[in-house]
Amino acid sequence: MLTVPAYAATSATEPLTPTTVERRDVGPHDILIEIKYVGICHSDIHNVRSEWGPASYPMVPGHEIAGVVAEVGREVTGYAPGDRVGVGCMVNSCRACEPCLRGEEQYCLNGNTLTYGSVDADGTLTQGGYSTHVVVNDDFVVRVPGTLALDEAAPLLCAGITTYSPLRRWGAGPGKKVAVVGLGGLGHLAVKIAHALGAEVTVLSQSLKKMDDGLRLGARRYFATSDPATFEQLAGAFDLIVNTVSARVDLDSYLGLLKPGGALINVGAPPEALSLNVVSLVMHGHVCAGSLIGGIRETQEMLDFCGEHGIGAEVEIIPAAKINEAFERMLASDVRYRFVIDTSTLP
Amino acid sequence: MLTVPAYAATSATEPLTPTTVERRDVGPHDILIEIKYVGICHSDIHNVRSEWGPASYPMVPGHEIAGVVAEVGREVTGYAPGDRVGVGCMVNSCRACEPCLRGEEQYCLNGNTLTYGSVDADGTLTQGGYSTHVVVNDDFVVRVPGTLALDEAAPLLCAGITTYSPLRRWGAGPGKKVAVVGLGGLGHLAVKIAHALGAEVTVLSQSLKKMDDGLRLGARRYFATSDPATFEQLAGAFDLIVNTVSARVDLDSYLGLLKPGGALINVGAPPEALSLNVVSLVMHGHVCAGSLIGGIRETQEMLDFCGEHGIGAEVEIIPAAKINEAFERMLASDVRYRFVIDTSTLP
Repeated sequence: MLTVPAYAATSATEPLTPTTVERRDVGPHDILIEIKYVGICHSDIHNVRSEWGPASYPMVPGHEIAGVVAEVGREVTGYAPGDRVGVGCMVNSCRACEPCLRGEEQYCLNGNTLTYGSVDADGTLTQGGYSTHVVVNDDFVVRVPGTLALDEAAPLLCAGITTYSPLRRWGAGPGKKVAVVGLGGLGHLAVKIAHALGAEVTVLSQSLKKMDDGLRLGARRYFATSDPATFEQLAGAFDLIVNTVSARVDLDSYLGLLKPGGALINVGAPPEALSLNVVSLVMHGHVCAGSLIGGIRETQEMLDFCGEHGIGAEVEIIPAAKINEAFERMLASDVRYRFVIDTSTLP
Repeated sequence: MLTVPAYAATSATEPLTPTTVERRDVGPHDILIEIKYVGICHSDIHNVRSEWGPASYPMVPGHEIAGVVAEVGREVTGYAPGDRVGVGCMVNSCRACEPCLRGEEQYCLNGNTLTYGSVDADGTLTQGGYSTHVVVNDDFVVRVPGTLALDEAAPLLCAGITTYSPLRRWGAGPGKKVAVVGLGGLGHLAVKIAHALGAEVTVLSQSLKKMDDGLRLGARRYFATSDPATFEQLAGAFDLIVNTVSARVDLDSYLGLLKPGGALINVGAPPEALSLNVVSLVMHGHVCAGSLIGGIRETQEMLDFCGEHGIGAEVEIIPAAKINEAFERMLASDVRYRFVIDTSTLP
């Protein structure tokens, strides 16, 4: 057992505070990772505040982990100390159900083990990456290409795969017009990845405030969704729309921006039900779908792709002491585009 | 100009009556078809009653046409008199837009020409297949395989392609579990086609009244959607659901029957908007989509497939004099499974 520094929430209402957390002994198939950087995902805020159901405390959030292998179990063959690695949203799954067998552990029918807030095989609660070290089964560790800085790679482990997976599945590529709704942590990576895949990218953002960024990141066009003219001008324009916004949206308005046969893929969503015009869906052969992160194999594929194309997240590095402030700034949309904690600053 | 017998609606409220209709002279790329049988599609009722927008009268409905080539234009090379042919929902399209160029004329961006109720190139109103003859551009004529009886083939031109297209696109085949919602004109063909494609088929029908038919047509299982236990028992059971019901349905309940990554494809829909839980769509990677008939190339592919597998519609042949009665019986769900008019009975 290893006791290591961490930052944890102790209740839904109090700020995160420094603490320590225990990591299990390195088993035969485990890897001890020295965490260098960990991204702050919006879901961390929801989770520590029990907004997505009651959380168990103390809770150490963090599922955008990038670091270096410190020690490997005796049966680990794929990794060696010093290797640059990442861990995303999951640290285990049943490995036997249909989704697991096809490499989609995010849809594990028997309940995968999340990187934090899940009950682990030994009955303990998993604790995430706002910490200096973590022990993870080698099947759920991925390799970070040497061309990527670890700080910029960390957010790829959740935000990157969440956007890469639907862009690949739904055919973003040369000759395709792709719109990205929302230019935040997810959206800015969607723009970079879709552009690198060869698609012509348009950003649909609430305002034009981040337009310079959007164009710099690879978008060809940038429109404000607060302007009703946008929806007239772009009617029927896109093969694929990736909606990264978790706020309430008018699905029919976005579906109206699709070509016949086009797809609106949601990676975020509000808790309340939305209204859908199914007649229009039929008349245009439109697709409205959801997509959840991605499997481990695809996460490695995404990292390799990002390594080849030099795609990292745009990050603002913060010390651990600024985690609570970062949460507040994220809620105020004051981040371009991902906060990443430098874990060397953990007390 | 050829004046031929037909049955037409003269207003939204009166029964259809015998009349005559004029068919244009056979142009270089036209085919004069002697119609032998024409299916009665539910949309015929909506159209003649102006339920889908104001119709122009007189209106001769009918877009499930099977017959024999009587005469071909001088530049027609693919067909000769005596050939067994069919015409579906479209008789022309722009041929230049993106959907047309990829063979999806049903999504023509410049407005395709429907078999009836559309303004044709010469400014006249197209008139459909409740008639003895029709003149159609050869690109919109398909070949009926010799193994299929013309009466059983007629409904394939709309009901067949409407179900075949999504079953193919969304991967119905060996190892896949497919549910068909509704066992009517569309649904009974969806069962036959999905079964022939190698999928394991389940019928989800309001009651168990047609269960014997469903199993005979190729379904392995049959459940009543009026029984709430159905939705518990079949939770997460299907790779693909084809919803042929135009009545209001609870989309979320049907999406709950899908495996992760599964698809609910609607080929029918009610006019009012439906409610959709997008969070659940995201969490399970589900797809909710629409599909409209199919293109001409795919319609030929469907007919060839049905020819190979001996798939025709289950039909009740009626004389023209019983068209209005058939409409009423359809509205009472009293048809197994498609009325087909024997056009030799036209006065």
